[in-house]
Amino acid sequence: MNRTATLSQLFASIQDDFALVDKTFQERATSSISLLNSASMHALASPGKRLRTAITLLSGKLNDYRLDKLVLLGVAYEMLHLATLIHDDIVDEAKTRRGNPTVNALWGDKIAILLGDYYFAKTAGLIADIEDPRVDHLFSDTVATVCEGTILEMMTAGSINLTVDTYYEKIKHKTACLIAACSKGGAIVSGASDRDIELLYDYGYYLGIAFQIIDDILDYTEDQSTIGKPVGNDLRQGMVTLPLIFALQEPSQNGYHQQVQDLLAGGTQKDEDIQKVVNWVVQGNGIKRAFMDAHAYGNKAREALYHFPPSPDRDVLDELIDFVLERKQ
Amino acid sequence: MNRTATLSQLFASIQDDFALVDKTFQERATSSISLLNSASMHALASPGKRLRTAITLLSGKLNDYRLDKLVLLGVAYEMLHLATLIHDDIVDEAKTRRGNPTVNALWGDKIAILLGDYYFAKTAGLIADIEDPRVDHLFSDTVATVCEGTILEMMTAGSINLTVDTYYEKIKHKTACLIAACSKGGAIVSGASDRDIELLYDYGYYLGIAFQIIDDILDYTEDQSTIGKPVGNDLRQGMVTLPLIFALQEPSQNGYHQQVQDLLAGGTQKDEDIQKVVNWVVQGNGIKRAFMDAHAYGNKAREALYHFPPSPDRDVLDELIDFVLERKQ
Repeated sequence: MNRTATLSQLFASIQDDFALVDKTFQERATSSISLLNSASMHALASPGKRLRTAITLLSGKLNDYRLDKLVLLGVAYEMLHLATLIHDDIVDEAKTRRGNPTVNALWGDKIAILLGDYYFAKTAGLIADIEDPRVDHLFSDTVATVCEGTILEMMTAGSINLTVDTYYEKIKHKTACLIAACSKGGAIVSGASDRDIELLYDYGYYLGIAFQIIDDILDYTEDQSTIGKPVGNDLRQGMVTLPLIFALQEPSQNGYHQQVQDLLAGGTQKDEDIQKVVNWVVQGNGIKRAFMDAHAYGNKAREALYHFPPSPDRDVLDELIDFVLERKQ
Repeated sequence: MNRTATLSQLFASIQDDFALVDKTFQERATSSISLLNSASMHALASPGKRLRTAITLLSGKLNDYRLDKLVLLGVAYEMLHLATLIHDDIVDEAKTRRGNPTVNALWGDKIAILLGDYYFAKTAGLIADIEDPRVDHLFSDTVATVCEGTILEMMTAGSINLTVDTYYEKIKHKTACLIAACSKGGAIVSGASDRDIELLYDYGYYLGIAFQIIDDILDYTEDQSTIGKPVGNDLRQGMVTLPLIFALQEPSQNGYHQQVQDLLAGGTQKDEDIQKVVNWVVQGNGIKRAFMDAHAYGNKAREALYHFPPSPDRDVLDELIDFVLERKQ
């Protein structure tokens, strides 16, 4: 399956509005400080999947589509996402993201800290332009929650005893709440009723959980050429994710418990040791069980969505769930 | 002169409101993540001079004092200032601030990045609660400007050729605009006229410039026991400030140009070499000329203030200018 073509088809109804978001992003990201512009332009070169913008715009489509406000919101979320990625890459000491060098790898941690802060400020400016107190609160709550999730991730890194519950707490804070803020924000600025706002929040929240589980699965199943980072990267970073938690619960896990613990502790991480554990996780039921969880959350997202009357726009949000569950990168 | 007593006397009219700001700060800084709370409490233990809160509250006093909104704004600025200090300390690789270990020294850069981000988010939440689009814009513009100032500082660090103009551009971005945002914000939420809002902006802006010049002078003239950081700290960090720029313009500077350049380049920085340059700056006219500049900006702040009719509250803002110019730490 050609992902790009599929996404293009899926997002055909908002293609022109995407272009407007891009244009506005470029305008808003510029600064009078030249180094800041160089760093911004580099960060912009890796826009990822544009998932957040699409969800923001499409959620607006289910109500009274207010393009001017939706564009501001879409740009704000892309910029907030970029700010958190830039700071995350420092925290994770990541050298590449999707095959490109990270800002910290190119310019050092200091510039990366400031560039992230700068984008936070620019995000707040976009949110201010929307002039809706509900959106202001949504924004600040979302950023605080994402920070808490990142701290939780750091605190639990390297622990083989991470529970399923803590894993979910972490991804709900770090990923799901931001995607939920896109769909909820899209609903708010498009004049949706309180009920519809909450339903679209649920849609984004459950979709976000499914998205992160799939991300964590792909870290085990796909190789560097597809996902732009080495396989077993989470393991290398001491990150225990759902496939590994489930694998460790298997009766056959006894021989691997110590190996996983050694890998998570860092120190001597040979590629072949990582690959051995990755193979073990892939061959067991960990991936399968994680997929089942992802599909369950996909269904919860669909359940929230099906409270809306059928429409071509609802169909796109519906197909987006399948895309998230079936993606290979 | 006992500074604390003097400040207490100066701020007697807002003492109770200060306590309310403190209480609100504590409430707003808490999190469900325990490590975040430990780090927050540590950061709170060094509240500095409370200058920003005082200016916010006192600017409100010149108009229709709206305590509920002023408290939110005062807490927001203290929190924003704290967020920028935490990130600055990472960028500057500072180990202590006012005699206490920095967050990065205690918990590492990663926690410090996230704690700063968390405070940014919490600041945005406080601003959102004020529900005034003008304050929303003031906040985001201020944060973006402070980031630009910090980047400019990094870009110009280590350069002996820093001009007076660039020095001023740097401190206007990094310091003055934040203090101006306090006085302007205090005016906005207290229902001041557009003219009064701009006058109070000018007051804070010029006071902020004077404040930073004095800060940069104290780095040369006061020792560690008074200001909580080693003398010549800016020089050690490669920061060229106004006293040094003026000193380098003196006809007698020839012998020191190379020594200063070597110190700024880092590498072998002996305490005695730093002390030698510090002594040279202190004995020349650099400090005196910097003081003259600070006083000129203090006068500009006073000029803006004197457009308001005389009142006990105006007197406090007036005396605050003298305090900033005469402080020894």
